[in-house]
Formats: sequence, C-alpha cells, structure tokens
Amino acid sequence: MSGLAFGPALMARLHELARFSDEPDRLTRLYLSPAHRRAMGQVAAWMTEAGMAVRIDAVGNVVGRYEASQPDAPAVLIGSHIDTVIDAGKYDGALGVLAGIAAVDALRRAGERLPVAIEVIAFGDEEGVRFPTTLTGSRTIAGTLAPGVLEARDADGVSLREALAAAGCNGDAFAGCARRPEDTLAYLEVHIEQGPVLEAENLPVGVVTAINGASRWRVEVTGEAGHAGTVPMALRRDALAAAAEMVLAVEREGRAMEDLVATVGQIEARPGAVNVVPGEVRFTLDLRAPSDAVRKAAGAVLDETFAAIAERRGVTLAIERFQDAAAVSCDPALIEQLTAAIERAGVAPRLLPSGAGHDAMALAALCPIAMLFVRCARGISHNPAEAISAADADLAVRVLLDFLRHAACDLRTS
Amino acid sequence: MSGLAFGPALMARLHELARFSDEPDRLTRLYLSPAHRRAMGQVAAWMTEAGMAVRIDAVGNVVGRYEASQPDAPAVLIGSHIDTVIDAGKYDGALGVLAGIAAVDALRRAGERLPVAIEVIAFGDEEGVRFPTTLTGSRTIAGTLAPGVLEARDADGVSLREALAAAGCNGDAFAGCARRPEDTLAYLEVHIEQGPVLEAENLPVGVVTAINGASRWRVEVTGEAGHAGTVPMALRRDALAAAAEMVLAVEREGRAMEDLVATVGQIEARPGAVNVVPGEVRFTLDLRAPSDAVRKAAGAVLDETFAAIAERRGVTLAIERFQDAAAVSCDPALIEQLTAAIERAGVAPRLLPSGAGHDAMALAALCPIAMLFVRCARGISHNPAEAISAADADLAVRVLLDFLRHAACDLRTS
Repeated sequence: MSGLAFGPALMARLHELARFSDEPDRLTRLYLSPAHRRAMGQVAAWMTEAGMAVRIDAVGNVVGRYEASQPDAPAVLIGSHIDTVIDAGKYDGALGVLAGIAAVDALRRAGERLPVAIEVIAFGDEEGVRFPTTLTGSRTIAGTLAPGVLEARDADGVSLREALAAAGCNGDAFAGCARRPEDTLAYLEVHIEQGPVLEAENLPVGVVTAINGASRWRVEVTGEAGHAGTVPMALRRDALAAAAEMVLAVEREGRAMEDLVATVGQIEARPGAVNVVPGEVRFTLDLRAPSDAVRKAAGAVLDETFAAIAERRGVTLAIERFQDAAAVSCDPALIEQLTAAIERAGVAPRLLPSGAGHDAMALAALCPIAMLFVRCARGISHNPAEAISAADADLAVRVLLDFLRHAACDLRTS
Repeated sequence: MSGLAFGPALMARLHELARFSDEPDRLTRLYLSPAHRRAMGQVAAWMTEAGMAVRIDAVGNVVGRYEASQPDAPAVLIGSHIDTVIDAGKYDGALGVLAGIAAVDALRRAGERLPVAIEVIAFGDEEGVRFPTTLTGSRTIAGTLAPGVLEARDADGVSLREALAAAGCNGDAFAGCARRPEDTLAYLEVHIEQGPVLEAENLPVGVVTAINGASRWRVEVTGEAGHAGTVPMALRRDALAAAAEMVLAVEREGRAMEDLVATVGQIEARPGAVNVVPGEVRFTLDLRAPSDAVRKAAGAVLDETFAAIAERRGVTLAIERFQDAAAVSCDPALIEQLTAAIERAGVAPRLLPSGAGHDAMALAALCPIAMLFVRCARGISHNPAEAISAADADLAVRVLLDFLRHAACDLRTS
C-alpha cells in the first residue's frame, strides 16, 4: 500500500464517511436525515481543507469550488451523491465525491491552478429512497427540477420543503441554484461499476459510453386453468408454459446484441397450486441498452415473438409498457480524454455502458458528461458487501487528476 | 326430456341435495358439519324409499342395502361421497350416490331382485377439507383406516372422535365397519369426469382404466441474483431462465406419452424485483399416469434433463420428492362389463384414466373396483360452474342398471 499516493487516505475517508448512518449497525443515510446532515458537514470540512470555497445550496447539495488560475473561469464539475439506500455499501456515490476532493487536494498541495475552475458537488438525493423523487440534487444544478417536487412527502408525511427547512435550506430558492451552460464545461462522475464486467476482465477502471435507456413491461398471459390430473396435455392452454417460452425468448434476445440486457425479474402464476394448470401468468420485462435503437428493435422483436407464442398456444396476451427512458450518451471528446488518461496510467481502457442510473443522467441536460467506473468486488452494490480495493481507488484519483490536467486546456479552448 | 326415464328425477334430487349447505349463498358441506348431517338424513330417507335397509356407520357413512334374491348374498357396492369442497359444484360425489339409489329404486319398482345384494354407500369424507385426513369413509369400509385418525383435529380444535360423537356416531367402533372380502364382489363408482376429455370427444360417459399414480416434487434452482442493468447476459446465472427451460421440459415430457400429464403449477422467483436477475426460483412438479412405470420413467427423464440444464447454466438444483402415490388399476373384467353395458346403450365406449383421486382408490384394497365417468361441462369441477346434462345423468343410471343386471350373474359365479 505504501506505493499508493491516494488510495489509503481515500479508503480511510470512505470508511469514515460510512460511519455517518441513521442506523447503529448498518449504513443507512437517507436524504436530509440527521446522518446525511452530519455527513454534509464532514464533506464540507474536507472540501475546505482541500482549498475549496464551500456552500450548501437550496436542496442540500454541498458545493466546493477550487478556482482557476483566472477568476470567474468556467468550471468542470465533479460529483456524485452522499445519500445511500437502506443497508448500503460504503462506496456507491461516496467514492465519486471523495475522489473529487482528493484530486483537488492534490492540486492544492502542488500549489497548482488549472485554466478551469473545479467544483466538487456532493448531491443529496440520488437514490430516491426517502421521498418519491430522485436526482433532486443533480436536477437542481441542471435546472430541470420540477417545482412540484417540494411538495413530495416521505413516509412520515414530512414534505421535502419541510425537510429542507429543518436542514437549514430554503427549498423555494432552488431555481437560483441552476447553473448556466456557459459556466459549466463538463461533468465528470467517478462511480463503482455496480456490475461484474471489469472484475471479470481483470481491469481496475473503465470508461462509460452511455447510461442505458430502459424499457419496462408488465406482461399478462391468460390461458385456461385446469386440474393437473384430469386435463390431458393436448387440451391445455397452460399460461406458465407459454410464459416460460417468453422468458427464454427474452434471454435469447438479450444475448443477440452486445450491450443489450433483457431480464424477467418477477413472475407469478395463478391460481398457483401444485395440482392446477396455471391459467394466468404475470411477468415483468426489463430491457436496457446504451443505444435506443437497439433497445427499441429488441422490444419490437419480443413483441412479435410473444404474439407468435401466444397465438400458437391459444393464450391471450396483454402488455403494459410502464417505462421507456432514453439512453444518455457520454460525450465522445470526454470519453477520448478519459481513455487517454487511463492509457497514460498504463492500463488498458475498457469502454462499457452503465446499466444503472446516475446523477450524470441529470447533468447531461446542462453540459457534456463523462463517467469513470471503478471495479467493485463481484459486482455487488446496494449491499454491505460492496467493496473496492485501495489500489483501484488510488488509480481512479490518478486518472481523474491526469484527466483534469490534460483536459482542462482542451475544454477551455474548444 | 320426457323420453328420459331417470335423468330429470336424478337432476332434481342432485339440486335438492345441493341445498344442504353450511353457507347460505354457496355449496359448502364439510364432513360431519350440520349440513352434512342433514344431508345424511335426506340420503337415508331416499335409500329407504328405494327399498333399502339403511344404517349410518361409525364414521358417518350412510349405507343402504338392497337384498339379493337369496339372503346373506355377497354384495356389489356402489358409492361415492356427499361431503364437498368449499364453494363446490352440485355433482362431484353426489352424482355417484344418487345414481346408485336411482338404479336400486328401478329394481324395486320392477319388483326385481338380483343374485347379489346391492349396497349404496354415501361416504362422509372424500375431500379431506375439514380434517387433515381424507377417504375416512371408504378406508373404514376397506379396513385400512389408521386408528390415529380419530385424533385428527379441525381448524377449531375439534377432534374427529368428538365430531363423530356430536353426529351420533361412535368413532371408536370403526374397525367393526370393515367389510370382509368374501362379502364384497365389487365396488363401482359413478363420478363426473372433472376433466374435458369426454366433452372434447362428444361422448356422454367413459370407463376408467386406472386412477393415476402421482409424483410431486418441489424444485429449487439457485443461480446468482444480480442487477438487471449492470450484469451482462454472458455473466448471468439466471435461475428463472433455467427454470423456464425446465418448465418446457416438463411440458415436452408430458406430451411424449399418452395418458401422462405433467404440470408446473406453482413458481416463485426471488428476490422478485423488476430490476433484479432472479437468483433463486422454486417451482412444483405434478406428474401423473395410469401406469406407474410410465410415471417413473418420466420422472427419471426429468431428473436427468433438469440436471443437464442446471449444469449447462451453472446453477444448482435441489429436488424434494414430497409425494409418490402408486396408480390404482380398475379391474379388467369389470371394465369389460361396463364397456359392454355402454355399447348396449348404443354409445361408443371410451376408456380413460382418472387424473383425480376417488373413494374407489381406498376400496381397491378390499375388492375389484370400476368407475363410470360422466361428461361434465368444460371439465370444470370444485366450482359452482360444475354442470352435467340430464341426458347424460339418465344414461349413467341406465348403464349402471344394465351393468348390475348383467354383471351380477358373472360376479356371483366367478
């Protein structure tokens, strides 16, 4: 570990931040909870130590600014979130914030100013666990937050406006926190992969090409229930056998295109007795791809395949499409610069899509975005078993710092 | 309808008996309930009217005996049950009892005695809904009832012994109700098919070859749960995709052999979220066939197929075999006689297995058994929509009567 400039200190801070929890024996830090408010204070203190001017905005984002060599220069934003799910891991969100602070701190220690300002932002609500909203912090910065969000209430009936007031924030001032495109050159987010690809390929980091678009369907197959002993096979219209064919068609379609993933996560057969042929089956489909065209084409293939299976088996089909979110592409120039920084660190650059959502999705409405993924153990996330290595954390900061030093000039002049 | 000798009267009695219910708006007549006890009285009265000597035995069976031309002749037993499931149909069980009474009544009206006695038995517990036991009545007659059954308790904590006492029966005397093989020539049960075969082939009645043996398994497939967005298809061990292959293998195997039926009735995927690849799936298998060899061979094929699917997909498999009941064959000579009676009625005889269990299963321990199936609408049973036609009911009584007249001599002398 002694050869690592940033890894050990960054890991120590990640573990320290994980102690800010609303529950004694596990990490739970919901938006604007007491633990989140204490964590905001700790992050602000670390930002101040790293030479940044710090403020907390109307929705509880902690924003630290490290000025450029010239005053009032446009900024590169580096961010992620410090809220967590219930019983969370230590790295989801926190890594991106603390890696950003570590990079700025390295500049301060070197007495170095870049031609662009750097802002590190600790967003307050990415997970969307407490309120029926998500990306509140990043949408505020991007200027896309819907005003009605302040009326959202948590399970205890506390409105977001009230929770913000209790944290010392004036939620109604959120519109003033939106950044102007001309002041923001780029948004960069370092995040654990939350998937197994980098580990499987023995790579410490990767560059995100796009945050996948997602389609979600609820599929209902209706056949005819019957006695498992008395209805001969030839006279059955078994909704589960039909659904099983559809589940396998989903898998086949997911495998047919690179970077497409297709999942049936829920299934229910009714009436659901050992001795009754299922008359009705409901299942869900989750279809994601970095390319909207690929995702839509796969959806069309499945639509046709399901219909053909249903017709052949004499069952009926009802499909409810309850989500259809477009993919968010990362900026090609930023991808290239991140790739170059990884190569300069002596690591093979791996481009991969992000299957999960991130604050970067919201920031894409404001400025070009890029994401650096860091390998995590067994792809596990949203779980206390979430883990990264100090060496990988170290590399992430080095790549980030190198990216900032090299990219700043390009961004400033492009 | 006017051309039918037995149908309209039999249908009227079936509808009358259906009024004996423990619930006001639907038919529910559990073993030894007030409605069942009133129904026992009604059935006893009809038996008496038909010229039978009637008694109620130690477990609540209503037994009517129509003597032969000679005293103390051995008997042909005709039976079925008068308990029902909750929210039942009018014909399951009741048809066999009331058809038997109608046949005896025809003999009485004709002043006719056969060389064998005829006993009609209304068993009290075939459905096994109230107590955790089943076939209590028929097992008592067959001499196979386990003594411990009297200690069984219903949901209110009432023991079978107590419930029998409340109905005026001395349960402890059950052993004395067992019949001797030398006194019982055959057992015949008329029952609705509870399946769609006869209707599909436009036939009013059929002859049962065997009551299917049944194997039941609980299968647990364990793969690895993962994020539906971040785990690429190639790195998945999707328990549901594996289970879907197994469901289709079950269907294929069921279709491979005539009279084999194979059903997956229950399925559960865990964790069961739209955005999580299922890590664990549990499903049930119900496998039935009139031939134990066929059923066992199918089980062995599925065992191998499941193992191959699991190995190929890197998932693990746990199979719990929680039921394995041998098939009960109907007597070839009785099948032949029933077939001949159907042919004499001008109907094509159809041989088919019984997928559901019946009192006849228990009686097989005592004497040769046979069953006559009657077509029911859409194969529906255990449901208020259960329906038969008066013409089919009429034919069933005529076939039964013809069978008794012809078979009696053969049985007496064989």
